[in-house]
Amino acid sequence: MSAGAEMTAVEIAAPGGPEVLRPTRRPKPRPGPGEMLVKIAFAGVNRPDVIQRQGLYPPPPGASDIPGLEFAGMVVELGPEPGPFRVGDRVCALVAGGGYAEYAVVHHSNALPIPRGLDAAHAAGLPETFFTVWTNVFERGGLKSGETFLVHGGTSGIGTTAIMLAKSFGATVIATAGSAAKCEACRALGADLAVDYREQDFVAAVKAATSGRGADLILDMVGGDYIERNQEAAAQGGRIVQIAFLKGSKVTIDLRRVMLKKLTYTGSTLRARSVAEKAAIAAALEKHVWPLLAEGRCRPVIDSRYPLAEAAAAHARMESNAHIGKILLEVG
Amino acid sequence: MSAGAEMTAVEIAAPGGPEVLRPTRRPKPRPGPGEMLVKIAFAGVNRPDVIQRQGLYPPPPGASDIPGLEFAGMVVELGPEPGPFRVGDRVCALVAGGGYAEYAVVHHSNALPIPRGLDAAHAAGLPETFFTVWTNVFERGGLKSGETFLVHGGTSGIGTTAIMLAKSFGATVIATAGSAAKCEACRALGADLAVDYREQDFVAAVKAATSGRGADLILDMVGGDYIERNQEAAAQGGRIVQIAFLKGSKVTIDLRRVMLKKLTYTGSTLRARSVAEKAAIAAALEKHVWPLLAEGRCRPVIDSRYPLAEAAAAHARMESNAHIGKILLEVG
Repeated sequence: MSAGAEMTAVEIAAPGGPEVLRPTRRPKPRPGPGEMLVKIAFAGVNRPDVIQRQGLYPPPPGASDIPGLEFAGMVVELGPEPGPFRVGDRVCALVAGGGYAEYAVVHHSNALPIPRGLDAAHAAGLPETFFTVWTNVFERGGLKSGETFLVHGGTSGIGTTAIMLAKSFGATVIATAGSAAKCEACRALGADLAVDYREQDFVAAVKAATSGRGADLILDMVGGDYIERNQEAAAQGGRIVQIAFLKGSKVTIDLRRVMLKKLTYTGSTLRARSVAEKAAIAAALEKHVWPLLAEGRCRPVIDSRYPLAEAAAAHARMESNAHIGKILLEVG
Repeated sequence: MSAGAEMTAVEIAAPGGPEVLRPTRRPKPRPGPGEMLVKIAFAGVNRPDVIQRQGLYPPPPGASDIPGLEFAGMVVELGPEPGPFRVGDRVCALVAGGGYAEYAVVHHSNALPIPRGLDAAHAAGLPETFFTVWTNVFERGGLKSGETFLVHGGTSGIGTTAIMLAKSFGATVIATAGSAAKCEACRALGADLAVDYREQDFVAAVKAATSGRGADLILDMVGGDYIERNQEAAAQGGRIVQIAFLKGSKVTIDLRRVMLKKLTYTGSTLRARSVAEKAAIAAALEKHVWPLLAEGRCRPVIDSRYPLAEAAAAHARMESNAHIGKILLEVG
């Protein structure tokens, strides 16, 4: 293979801390049927990348072992059976791996045009959180205008996106976060109430803010003791959507409240879904959410940017939990 | 108050075994606005009555302390603002208490005409299980034609009703029960597969019967270790509806499967719902299910009948778990 068919990528040398992320040379991937090759400008860093690096979240079958679930860049080559995009188009995309690299392939149906008015950096931080929030909050959770929505991790990528989209669609939003500054950031994004969980019991805060009624929908990535506390904080008939278990998934819990309050407890993961399922989410986003981005009514929050070769520093930043919004890798 | 304004009822003298059920004299209740007085012919015995007798399930605010959640009989008096029923009409009804008596009042919207072709005994056993199965299996659980439905306690009142209705609406039905004879009864009611849980692991049986896919919807009243096993037996995207916790609601469980399999875990209780909510279920039953009963395509299963004064024996029968179908009290 010629040098021209190679590219720089960042691989996980072995399970471990941020230092195991190591620049390497890999063959440039080739687009298969329906796929296109994208020259990456920016790639997003996400919590699942960290867990994959720790060796606890293997890539799904068929996915690249290179981490990275989202990117933005320019289409440079089309495989057979191309879709609507052409060489030279600027796109952002969701992938099951391979984003920490100069090039990646993606099925055209899992890519979206970069929204009007956004640069590649902001667009690179869209796919993972916008796909996740759309499918879990609006599709699975069924959030409706006028409802009260509680989101934990309000300043995470998921949290900032969830606050903005829930507000855009008419919900009352309560966010939890771990400092006064983070709470201020949640409010600046539109949250009606931000609860510093280090200072205040979020169950009591939600009850107080809803005249004792509780939240209609809760989006949680914390797990652990939050699982039972979410059930306390939920309204009669409330829904709770679990998208991760940062504090663990094994709990001792009394589930009687699920029956007595007619709660719905559900959850999902995004990465292992089929191309077709992700395509359906992409289509819904382009219809319902891309116009909000183009109109500037909703804008992704960027925390920081690191060169691709410094992916380890980006991971250390995420693990510090000091970030507000998306952490990006600048590629080309 | 004259002797004519009194009636015989069965009260719970104190929390305890079946022997605490004691015939007594009580004032005949008077119908309020929208209510009607029904002279009871038969009353149904249900598991919640047993738990109430044990002192573990107090009647909701405003409900009679007399046990009994359903009955069939004749309308003998109308309160102000009457509904469509007239004196002399034969009805069956769902109430929050008061069924173990010669007379009871019910809001007209929580009563239904006795289906054509059914006698009062069969009609008395309809409301509790049909309201429960309709709202939990079809409304909350969203059972669709072609799906695989797993119901535990297949020979209980709820179980027999769930088997019949799920089959009537085109589902493949798997039932669990605790003996070969009970499994035979489940199959006679239409279950495609009956699993004797004393002989066989129901998770393995469900997987084997669905080519490893699992059940789309599970109706459970057992709880305890069934909670996690239901999650194992469910298909990707499956729903689990919990309507009781006979083996307990406090569990140690790994909830990761809810997220990875995109499960929905929910539940509800019937008794504490408002008259309006019960009226909505009654209307749906009259439209979708009463025609099936009138056509004989679905027929409630009666286990046994006891005189009202022998309610204690009826409870002992239920607690023996030997019954198949409904246990009734013959009143007048």
